[in-house]
Amino acid sequence: MATAGEVIKCKAAVAWEAGKPLSIEEVEVAPPQAMEVRLKILYTALCHTDVYFWEAKGQTPVFPRIFGHEAGGIVESVGEGVTELAPGDHVLPVFTGECKDCPHCLSEESNLCDLLRINTDRGAMIADGRPRFTARGGQPVYHFPGTSTFSEYTVVHVGCVAKIDPAAPLDKVCVLSCGISTGFGATVNVAKPPKGCTVAIFGLGAVGLAAMEGARISGASRIIGVDLNPAKFDLAKKFGCTDFVNPKDYDKPVQQVIIEMTNGGVDRSVECTGNAAAMISAFECVHDGWGVAVLVGVAGKEAVFRTHPTNFLNERTLKGTFFGNYKPRTDLPGVVDMYMNKELELEKFITHSVPFTEINTAFDLMLSGESLRCIIRMED
Amino acid sequence: MATAGEVIKCKAAVAWEAGKPLSIEEVEVAPPQAMEVRLKILYTALCHTDVYFWEAKGQTPVFPRIFGHEAGGIVESVGEGVTELAPGDHVLPVFTGECKDCPHCLSEESNLCDLLRINTDRGAMIADGRPRFTARGGQPVYHFPGTSTFSEYTVVHVGCVAKIDPAAPLDKVCVLSCGISTGFGATVNVAKPPKGCTVAIFGLGAVGLAAMEGARISGASRIIGVDLNPAKFDLAKKFGCTDFVNPKDYDKPVQQVIIEMTNGGVDRSVECTGNAAAMISAFECVHDGWGVAVLVGVAGKEAVFRTHPTNFLNERTLKGTFFGNYKPRTDLPGVVDMYMNKELELEKFITHSVPFTEINTAFDLMLSGESLRCIIRMED
Repeated sequence: MATAGEVIKCKAAVAWEAGKPLSIEEVEVAPPQAMEVRLKILYTALCHTDVYFWEAKGQTPVFPRIFGHEAGGIVESVGEGVTELAPGDHVLPVFTGECKDCPHCLSEESNLCDLLRINTDRGAMIADGRPRFTARGGQPVYHFPGTSTFSEYTVVHVGCVAKIDPAAPLDKVCVLSCGISTGFGATVNVAKPPKGCTVAIFGLGAVGLAAMEGARISGASRIIGVDLNPAKFDLAKKFGCTDFVNPKDYDKPVQQVIIEMTNGGVDRSVECTGNAAAMISAFECVHDGWGVAVLVGVAGKEAVFRTHPTNFLNERTLKGTFFGNYKPRTDLPGVVDMYMNKELELEKFITHSVPFTEINTAFDLMLSGESLRCIIRMED
Repeated sequence: MATAGEVIKCKAAVAWEAGKPLSIEEVEVAPPQAMEVRLKILYTALCHTDVYFWEAKGQTPVFPRIFGHEAGGIVESVGEGVTELAPGDHVLPVFTGECKDCPHCLSEESNLCDLLRINTDRGAMIADGRPRFTARGGQPVYHFPGTSTFSEYTVVHVGCVAKIDPAAPLDKVCVLSCGISTGFGATVNVAKPPKGCTVAIFGLGAVGLAAMEGARISGASRIIGVDLNPAKFDLAKKFGCTDFVNPKDYDKPVQQVIIEMTNGGVDRSVECTGNAAAMISAFECVHDGWGVAVLVGVAGKEAVFRTHPTNFLNERTLKGTFFGNYKPRTDLPGVVDMYMNKELELEKFITHSVPFTEINTAFDLMLSGESLRCIIRMED
């Protein structure tokens, strides 16, 4: 393209300060260096993790910064050494990468790439430790988390880019960059519920509902949704929820309620809240002998998981997962294909859509709990 | 046999009081009732669990009682409804059973039979809630734990009896009734170490060494033994131990020592101590991405397993196992065959042997830590 090798001037939503509305303004985006690609972002969605680090309560504040990590775009140009991608390729940038060379990438059991594992404190590219963005006459603007998709153009390490079917609608499949794949993969790749089994899902936000979608597609016969907000049940029914349990409605621990409902416990559970008490309940509500509990939510620094060891000796299994155990470059194209083959329904996760100029509305919708996913249209 | 249907008078080692030497004396053994079999015991070994309940510190004291649950014998007679076994069959009685009919027995993933799961408080047969033993002119003598193999004859539920190759030497394979199968199965059935991987074994008693034997047979390239007693290393080398770690030799947690030794953690760990701190170390020393920790040891009532949830989110797995996940009737004959095919070495677990009259010596040897397994010869 004519812009290859050049600095691109474009619009980006810059967060200058923690918790303050993003400011859409002109930024300069440097060309990609070795093993980097520059992407034209067409659609980006807002995920809780963006909001969490934008609020910067308890995290290292890194500002000014361009947030955004659930997106779909097209390769504009590639840096030296990039052979797998070419201008025009349709892609999903991903917050965690796959170098294809480290022990984790070479293991079939892990997606925790040594080189490109998520690093939310890092605001710059690995190659030279510098950001590719500048604004307001040369001031550096930092990246998050290796993607920064709230910009018309962004620079990403090639290991953080999944090349997908160009026929896939980017305004839908962009949600597979993070939350939906995380929840869906937690069920289908890690919990692996056998057909006809019972599954409990803790936390009915977008990730939990994606985990529920995985249970529905796996043919679970009973799917118990657990959430503190009773309004979530109506929504969850669209994802296969058959029973709803609100822990607030009972004097006894919710794991005991679920054990009584299911004659000994559910076959599988998936925890998507990040709350340690919910993690303990999710583990203790699975059936002895064969129950498997999967933890997805990210807990705070002070959180402690505690249980009596007998709960393990009774042959329960507890696992955690990161990004649904998907290796982004190897596996995401197949998840996109599942959507294209109408196996996986993405439309029901997308509750709102706004033009880029109204990106702060997406934040408002998420903070008020109104949206599951709000798509931000970069070209409108 | 001539004794079928009759009361048999024979010798048994009766524990009349907690912690007092067993008394070998004449008992009467009633004929087997429906779904029961009466066995002539030829060899029995002593396991820590016998000692633990004989000491009755913290357990419900059930006395007088006949202990013993690692044994080999021959079917003397069978009760009504027993079709799978006949007089003359060579068998291993097992402390936990397999009814072949409950949800656990029908599940491929569980061996926690609803009907015959170990019950250490129960001193009588399920059929009528009464013991089959009497001594000293009619006084009932209680069972433990459904096996009571410290008797020349005993009555056992048919679901707790594994029929094995009659060519197998009962003085060797009797140790497969409990500890050796528990540790060996924990590794080969649950931890499933891939060939060439690194394994840590916590606790180098008979169960831990059996877990180590499983790692050796699985082709582990490095096997780290962890024990507070440095003398265990020499013994453990026979079971494939390549490195020894004594937590007392370090100021830092043993999991940190192991992580540093192995560039990020072992691929698999098996905990065989019953100590909650060891369980936590065994979990936290496995590699992120693919590490699997298996808990085998039975913890006390007040024990708490605690860890930061991030240790799960980094894709570690924690499982517990009971009796090495073996279904006793279905699977034990195959383990006996592994010994007969010289795949599994049992001789090195058998450090001592005494005639039945010296059964209290077996207790002394275990309490002093001198023996791994002491075989008690019933006919000597």
